[in-house]
Amino acid sequence: MAAVIGAKSTAPASLSERFREVRARSVQIASWLQPEDCVVQSMPDVSPTKWHLAHVTWFFEQFVLLPSAANYQAYDEQFLYLFNSYYQSAGAMHARPERGLLSRPTLAEVLSYREHVDAAMHRLLEGGITESLRSVVTLGLEHERQHQELALTDIKHVLSCNPLGPAMRDDLVIHKAIAMPRPSFTSHTGGITEIGASVDSEAFCYDNETPTHDVLLRDFAIADSLVTNREFRHFIDDSGYTTSSLWLSDGWTAVQTHGWCAPLYWNLDTETEFTLGGERDIDLDAPVSHISFYEADAFARWAGARLPSEAEWEVAARQHSVDGNTFESDCWHPMPGAHGQWFGDVWEWTACSYAPYPGFRPLEGSLGEYNGKFMCNQMVVRGGSCVTAADHLRPTYRSFFYPDARWQFLGLRLARDI
Amino acid sequence: MAAVIGAKSTAPASLSERFREVRARSVQIASWLQPEDCVVQSMPDVSPTKWHLAHVTWFFEQFVLLPSAANYQAYDEQFLYLFNSYYQSAGAMHARPERGLLSRPTLAEVLSYREHVDAAMHRLLEGGITESLRSVVTLGLEHERQHQELALTDIKHVLSCNPLGPAMRDDLVIHKAIAMPRPSFTSHTGGITEIGASVDSEAFCYDNETPTHDVLLRDFAIADSLVTNREFRHFIDDSGYTTSSLWLSDGWTAVQTHGWCAPLYWNLDTETEFTLGGERDIDLDAPVSHISFYEADAFARWAGARLPSEAEWEVAARQHSVDGNTFESDCWHPMPGAHGQWFGDVWEWTACSYAPYPGFRPLEGSLGEYNGKFMCNQMVVRGGSCVTAADHLRPTYRSFFYPDARWQFLGLRLARDI
Amino acid sequence: MAAVIGAKSTAPASLSERFREVRARSVQIASWLQPEDCVVQSMPDVSPTKWHLAHVTWFFEQFVLLPSAANYQAYDEQFLYLFNSYYQSAGAMHARPERGLLSRPTLAEVLSYREHVDAAMHRLLEGGITESLRSVVTLGLEHERQHQELALTDIKHVLSCNPLGPAMRDDLVIHKAIAMPRPSFTSHTGGITEIGASVDSEAFCYDNETPTHDVLLRDFAIADSLVTNREFRHFIDDSGYTTSSLWLSDGWTAVQTHGWCAPLYWNLDTETEFTLGGERDIDLDAPVSHISFYEADAFARWAGARLPSEAEWEVAARQHSVDGNTFESDCWHPMPGAHGQWFGDVWEWTACSYAPYPGFRPLEGSLGEYNGKFMCNQMVVRGGSCVTAADHLRPTYRSFFYPDARWQFLGLRLARDI
Amino acid sequence: MAAVIGAKSTAPASLSERFREVRARSVQIASWLQPEDCVVQSMPDVSPTKWHLAHVTWFFEQFVLLPSAANYQAYDEQFLYLFNSYYQSAGAMHARPERGLLSRPTLAEVLSYREHVDAAMHRLLEGGITESLRSVVTLGLEHERQHQELALTDIKHVLSCNPLGPAMRDDLVIHKAIAMPRPSFTSHTGGITEIGASVDSEAFCYDNETPTHDVLLRDFAIADSLVTNREFRHFIDDSGYTTSSLWLSDGWTAVQTHGWCAPLYWNLDTETEFTLGGERDIDLDAPVSHISFYEADAFARWAGARLPSEAEWEVAARQHSVDGNTFESDCWHPMPGAHGQWFGDVWEWTACSYAPYPGFRPLEGSLGEYNGKFMCNQMVVRGGSCVTAADHLRPTYRSFFYPDARWQFLGLRLARDI
Repeated sequence: MAAVIGAKSTAPASLSERFREVRARSVQIASWLQPEDCVVQSMPDVSPTKWHLAHVTWFFEQFVLLPSAANYQAYDEQFLYLFNSYYQSAGAMHARPERGLLSRPTLAEVLSYREHVDAAMHRLLEGGITESLRSVVTLGLEHERQHQELALTDIKHVLSCNPLGPAMRDDLVIHKAIAMPRPSFTSHTGGITEIGASVDSEAFCYDNETPTHDVLLRDFAIADSLVTNREFRHFIDDSGYTTSSLWLSDGWTAVQTHGWCAPLYWNLDTETEFTLGGERDIDLDAPVSHISFYEADAFARWAGARLPSEAEWEVAARQHSVDGNTFESDCWHPMPGAHGQWFGDVWEWTACSYAPYPGFRPLEGSLGEYNGKFMCNQMVVRGGSCVTAADHLRPTYRSFFYPDARWQFLGLRLARDI
Repeated sequence: MAAVIGAKSTAPASLSERFREVRARSVQIASWLQPEDCVVQSMPDVSPTKWHLAHVTWFFEQFVLLPSAANYQAYDEQFLYLFNSYYQSAGAMHARPERGLLSRPTLAEVLSYREHVDAAMHRLLEGGITESLRSVVTLGLEHERQHQELALTDIKHVLSCNPLGPAMRDDLVIHKAIAMPRPSFTSHTGGITEIGASVDSEAFCYDNETPTHDVLLRDFAIADSLVTNREFRHFIDDSGYTTSSLWLSDGWTAVQTHGWCAPLYWNLDTETEFTLGGERDIDLDAPVSHISFYEADAFARWAGARLPSEAEWEVAARQHSVDGNTFESDCWHPMPGAHGQWFGDVWEWTACSYAPYPGFRPLEGSLGEYNGKFMCNQMVVRGGSCVTAADHLRPTYRSFFYPDARWQFLGLRLARDI
Repeated sequence: MAAVIGAKSTAPASLSERFREVRARSVQIASWLQPEDCVVQSMPDVSPTKWHLAHVTWFFEQFVLLPSAANYQAYDEQFLYLFNSYYQSAGAMHARPERGLLSRPTLAEVLSYREHVDAAMHRLLEGGITESLRSVVTLGLEHERQHQELALTDIKHVLSCNPLGPAMRDDLVIHKAIAMPRPSFTSHTGGITEIGASVDSEAFCYDNETPTHDVLLRDFAIADSLVTNREFRHFIDDSGYTTSSLWLSDGWTAVQTHGWCAPLYWNLDTETEFTLGGERDIDLDAPVSHISFYEADAFARWAGARLPSEAEWEVAARQHSVDGNTFESDCWHPMPGAHGQWFGDVWEWTACSYAPYPGFRPLEGSLGEYNGKFMCNQMVVRGGSCVTAADHLRPTYRSFFYPDARWQFLGLRLARDI
Repeated sequence: MAAVIGAKSTAPASLSERFREVRARSVQIASWLQPEDCVVQSMPDVSPTKWHLAHVTWFFEQFVLLPSAANYQAYDEQFLYLFNSYYQSAGAMHARPERGLLSRPTLAEVLSYREHVDAAMHRLLEGGITESLRSVVTLGLEHERQHQELALTDIKHVLSCNPLGPAMRDDLVIHKAIAMPRPSFTSHTGGITEIGASVDSEAFCYDNETPTHDVLLRDFAIADSLVTNREFRHFIDDSGYTTSSLWLSDGWTAVQTHGWCAPLYWNLDTETEFTLGGERDIDLDAPVSHISFYEADAFARWAGARLPSEAEWEVAARQHSVDGNTFESDCWHPMPGAHGQWFGDVWEWTACSYAPYPGFRPLEGSLGEYNGKFMCNQMVVRGGSCVTAADHLRPTYRSFFYPDARWQFLGLRLARDI
């Protein structure tokens, strides 16, 4: 899973407050669930909600409290094993595909664990900490933001496996369908331009966004809006899923193997899709979501276009404000009518394999395992989704998934050579 | 799993009372667990506790209330699908290996379902029912007895997968080790003898125990006690698990494939085993348990003996009272010193493949799917275990498992030609 | 694989001659094939022809020449490893599923190996050998007879996987369709009767046929002829493959998993089946073949009958001469019109799990691994097939296969309680 | 598999002659093998030699003769199905993992097929063909060159699976070990530079090498020689395979899953490696080979360096002549002492995921399936190997493999930022 790691801290004054706020949101998310919901692992990519709640807590215990808080004792030595995700250098860990076998600690016990760690963290923060430790705490909060998103996409998958089709929440906001304008493309002139984030930046970023570096772009045009369900429906109706010439070879194999014939969660018979608010009619004007890179790539080829490179995306996106349909909109589903927006709704597949920027240096120590070791076989996505926290997004942000991933909110925007 | 089905009813007077008592025990078993425990399916053979609680309830709804209770409406139509186990003739069913994906209905919702069905059942029973329906209700209760045992062996497996090693109950009875006498063998003279249960018997039995029929036995001797952990430990120490000549070919393959080197739940390093009361020292005088048919067969060959046939076992066992360490002993673990007992502690592997008795007729209708269709590839076990209800046992009772099954309380008793 | 092992020798005078004759047939079988045909392993159950030719040779080298021929050196030490099938006590062996990876030794090299061993065997036999060694040589010849049958059924499977559908031989005998009489049943009175072979018999038998022992039979009737393709076609047309109530649970799972809808090698579209003579029209009057135990059992249930027990079969069969359509008929396919015959055409599934007879003792040493260790999970078949050598058959002969096996010539005969 | 496809033809005058020469080499390669060798498929990536011989022939039949030769009839309609590799637009095809199931057509029959097609091709070429058809013929010859290399690496894998360890040839040239100079690095100044091949070039190239385009490079240094077995042995001795921090996450998983502890074909116990000339001592001064991208990447990290990008490699390599240890050297194994050479010995892993060059356009029609559809999940390799034809190499050539591939001659050269 795309765990990531940052380098910079937030404004010093607000750290305690921000800690409280970020941590509270995780508990709030769990409050919409039953204890039973928090146990299930519906596929290896998915982690139980309970596990997310404990793992993000372990992060603070492992990387902040144990090394830096005087006299701090691990809440439970076995939790260091159970809730380590993939930090080989931090010790042995429980096997990922077996997270769903653990009924204990119970949700209540995990919440107690959280309270214990929170109390110790607040004591530490109130006592004042070094700049370097502040960076790690900030990173831990951004880490928790990521897991809040994962917890939502994971529980969506869990609930979708249940023939009862339970909604996570019945009170989510639904926006009325809005007729979308025809997609328009904006042209950009090529040349050498700088992208990425500076290692000396004041604002937070992950190490994989650094360093800033020049790239050489050619002239290109990029769409002002995301591909919609209506457009994707045309692709389906035009035999998109059965026309091999539209597909990458590995994508075609995936289509055959999994029997894909529509985005994940779509039911073509009923024209509905499963959402965090239960089964709903597909809104044709909303951005298409829950498609793999292969489907995004095939759609773009069918449309006579291509996916943007991540540099093209970043150059275009940084001219726009970081606004959009995010977690705070209380929709938790892509929303129609988002013309001219570059953030929220769905993560956008780019044409780029996830690789280190020139001059990239991972963080020191265990935290260096966060981003660098995943730089192979995955594709970069940009822009954030309807369940990403707004304060977690920025134009330089790179997330990444395997090209067959579909359980995240994943869609696309078209680009073209000009 | 080896669900089975009966033919005869218990005494008319007590049916309501017995219904109340059997149903209450299921709820009591769940009361020792957290809601999170009741969700997990740790392997395909295991079902979540929640599922057991609902499935045995579905049995009454499907086979008693829907066909026979005036105006009864299904509590939830979808439950008919979710909680059908394997009755093809009763309609489609949820895939067995996916029972652990279902967080809903929650434990509380399943308990409500139980209450609803119980109320309807009591109304029905109070109104008086036919003899034939009475048979089905009795069968449903024996069915629930079986699932109570399965729920315990299943949750044992679930908890054993957790590195925290949680005990289901801390208050289980532990018996002090008692030095066991050397096993002695009792001789039996061969000849024609009748075994099995009559289709006209007043007492309850499953259809697979019928009809009574003659068998031809040769002279044989059979041990008065079960093989103990001490004896099995000698087998291990004598390279039992690495001596191919002791094993059936399929057994040897299983040993290599799974890396078996001791009974399931044993930890040879610490000389402990996982129990429903948590991790405990292995009591060398207690009967060995959690071994496959292959291990029982290899042990018998190593000991210069053999497994008894099911007819031999029945002929010997029916001379003894149905006493032993059962669910009601509150041990939930095999107990040392059970010399001369034929029931409880562990199910005993026999040498016999599970097959129909001559003249066997399955029950009519869906209930005919209970026993007959499993009569291939499985081995007969006899005698019941430390988590079987005492009132569920009798000398003619045949249960059955695949030869590689280990998660039940499964052990052996030796026999010999004479 | 159903390798088997004998206990008794053939008549002393003819051993050299019989050795020459049996060995020659193996080479003759290979002569109908191209070197390329002899390499392929189309599934784990199948062995390449080359491997069969070498393995039966290894048998004589391992169990006769190396222990008993003065100064005999292994032809190639590595062949002892490559061509050991499953004799754990004879040393390590090459993994069975990887037999198809071996292009060397080539067919020509294997034939040289055979000549080398044959020469040494003839020297040994001419010098005179002990009675005990004579038994082993006889066993080796019966063993080679079995592998001749396996080589034919294996190559049939190999060729069937080739879209070109090559025939092994174009000159096989084809018998014209003969209208079959309605199947008639012969009644047998029950009681105690002796079956099996004596350990002291002059005639050859395998150890698993011994000892003779009493069985208790009930009155029964058994069909005088095999179930035909026409009858099986009625089963198919009557939704046999889609009616779950006809099937054992494991059989139903096999049907779903493999998508079975007809016997192996049948093409329902063209009404043809693949044979060793290539693709041919299905002869409706010929015995059905290439069905699993599950299909035989389901057919019998559909027909209102059952499979015979192996004792019933033996009691009925021993009243008939050992005649029928065997290897020597040069048909290599079941033939229509075999009324009243009990041998040849197809092996007949019985209702019995393969288990030791009471008092069974395996042979001493490595040869004891032949039969005994397979006595679990398999079903007994009786009677031999159209590719079995006639001199290899007798009423007491027990062969055995897993219940899902279909690549042998496997069919059935019905029985009934009376 | 990395099939590729070109756009340009060789010099008009020599086409017939070149056709004869390229086609003859394929037959010569087969002449060193037994018919049995030509059947085996030792893993899904491997194709049988027979298949390679037929597939490259099919290419001419499918893309040249059938569309362009008057009155040409397919040699065998079924061959169009059997020997299509992955051209979805050319019709259905036989499943790749089942190529090893086909004993027919035999090697001799495939050679007859080749003669038939060769004769028709010569008639066509002698009659004169269009420039466009000439391009396709040239492409077919380059295609056959690629399959000659694959046939050799595939048969190496096949023979290596045989415990007998057969050599393909006993007469291969072995070069004496030469002490290697310390690797030196050459510095290159960054800036904008053009790479790739022009779509209008006279010389042959594949479509994936086009179009020429500017790239922006930073200053870098690149090694003058390949990493040797001695250097790789230091990596192993320094716990390279057990130090997780050196590995990409997917690489670490591969190491654990496959138990990698040395390059493929190495035997650490005997300090030998399997070669096309049989088992040989590892020459520590020769370039390391048969390592995956993951191992190359981990080695580079351990060495404090990195893999070059493909643009860096091309810029450096084009300053050197296309010389080296190739097929024609008759070594068929990496050779020591190749200082300052950029071609032959082993394909060199680059840091780049295989992706389209800006402005890339695949060929029209079925031939467009050759390269473009594989542009995902694979890594670019450069430079050719000891079994690549010398006339098949050039600085712009891009080949590509999945990062876990090891059965090709695959090694690395280090690079560094400066």
